[in-house]
Amino acid sequence: MSDFTNIRALTFDVFGTVVDWRSGIAREAEAMLAPKGHAFDWGAFANAWRKQILPAMGPVRAGDRSYVTMDALHRETLDVALAEFGVADIDQTEKHRLAMGWRRLDPWQDSIGGMSLLKAKHAVVALSNGNIALVLAMAKRAGIPWDTILGADLVRTYKPDAAIYDSASRFLDIAPSQVMMVACHPGDLDAAKSRGLATAYVHRPLEWGPGTERPLPEAGAYDVVCNSFTDLAGVLGD
Amino acid sequence: MSDFTNIRALTFDVFGTVVDWRSGIAREAEAMLAPKGHAFDWGAFANAWRKQILPAMGPVRAGDRSYVTMDALHRETLDVALAEFGVADIDQTEKHRLAMGWRRLDPWQDSIGGMSLLKAKHAVVALSNGNIALVLAMAKRAGIPWDTILGADLVRTYKPDAAIYDSASRFLDIAPSQVMMVACHPGDLDAAKSRGLATAYVHRPLEWGPGTERPLPEAGAYDVVCNSFTDLAGVLGD
Repeated sequence: MSDFTNIRALTFDVFGTVVDWRSGIAREAEAMLAPKGHAFDWGAFANAWRKQILPAMGPVRAGDRSYVTMDALHRETLDVALAEFGVADIDQTEKHRLAMGWRRLDPWQDSIGGMSLLKAKHAVVALSNGNIALVLAMAKRAGIPWDTILGADLVRTYKPDAAIYDSASRFLDIAPSQVMMVACHPGDLDAAKSRGLATAYVHRPLEWGPGTERPLPEAGAYDVVCNSFTDLAGVLGD
Repeated sequence: MSDFTNIRALTFDVFGTVVDWRSGIAREAEAMLAPKGHAFDWGAFANAWRKQILPAMGPVRAGDRSYVTMDALHRETLDVALAEFGVADIDQTEKHRLAMGWRRLDPWQDSIGGMSLLKAKHAVVALSNGNIALVLAMAKRAGIPWDTILGADLVRTYKPDAAIYDSASRFLDIAPSQVMMVACHPGDLDAAKSRGLATAYVHRPLEWGPGTERPLPEAGAYDVVCNSFTDLAGVLGD
């Protein structure tokens, strides 16, 4: 039985871990494009767009491109996703609105209740590749109860760059071992662990939609392996 | 009648505006020093300490000293305040605990209720000379419902440096005119106004204790001149 009494702050990944980006983007895309007569698999569109976004962070992380916000990457990569699905009848204002759809995502069912429990004894902090304005707008719309938001615009790089994890303990003025990274992505957690943070894996089998489930990591791969934020609250004694 | 419908975020000064630092520090000093046999005017001690802290930010703001956090300035200036009051019987651990007393301040009576109202339509954001960890610890203890915290450690200077006000609209991704600075200090508001932010003066006549009241600014000196956060909520239509 692990002792988690020294954990002071929980730093959360946002996209996939706190919010269900796929359903939200599918809904936003359908609302924008179905009235124009388009009819495709909206979840597949969301996945295709997300698959453009992930590598778009690479050049910034590698230092080959000056930092640009996640909002900006959403707008850039939208053009590629639209082309892939043969959508040409969409103007600049509509594209902007659709790119900002990433600010209008809904939490997983357990997210807000679990975070509310976790807030009693811990600082509940976003440590996101999203920029502050994006994560804040999402939180205001959806009622996500952050204690504070550490966006990628503070360090001007993207996870899993070590500088992001190191900045969390510096901004929070606690040791890395007093910070627990909460994410559904092994890559995020592995990087956090390598910088001395504690780690909690939360399983989000539907992140990429039905039929894409990956297995749970082995127990012991992370300090906590669980299925929801409410489970995590139970494990941490909140 | 002004139109405030374009205001999206309220950025709050913290010390004096949200929390009553004088009563809190008087309480912390008494708890630490009275058991040692000291008996002086604890409010006067708080004022004397604060009067050391304010100029200590100057060299950082002027670029003559590398950024150090407000927590660190609290610890440094404590030695001067203790010497002024003839206190020598206090060890390093006790000094650290007393300096961290600035993380344990209580809000003015209207602060939390007013902010809760203001959160319905606005982002409620700390824009403080305190570092994130300090403002976050204070919020967790006292229940201050920030949407997010922009601490001076993000820009590594101190208000009224223009860079702090400029950073607020950048981090929040809105125009300066969509940000309203909320403070009880004319200097803070004047600097915010010069950078294009809207301004709300909230009167805190007891900041420095009984008998130190300054007059209300003229109506029209700021976009809002009011007596409490609940008044501000009324003016903004929350």
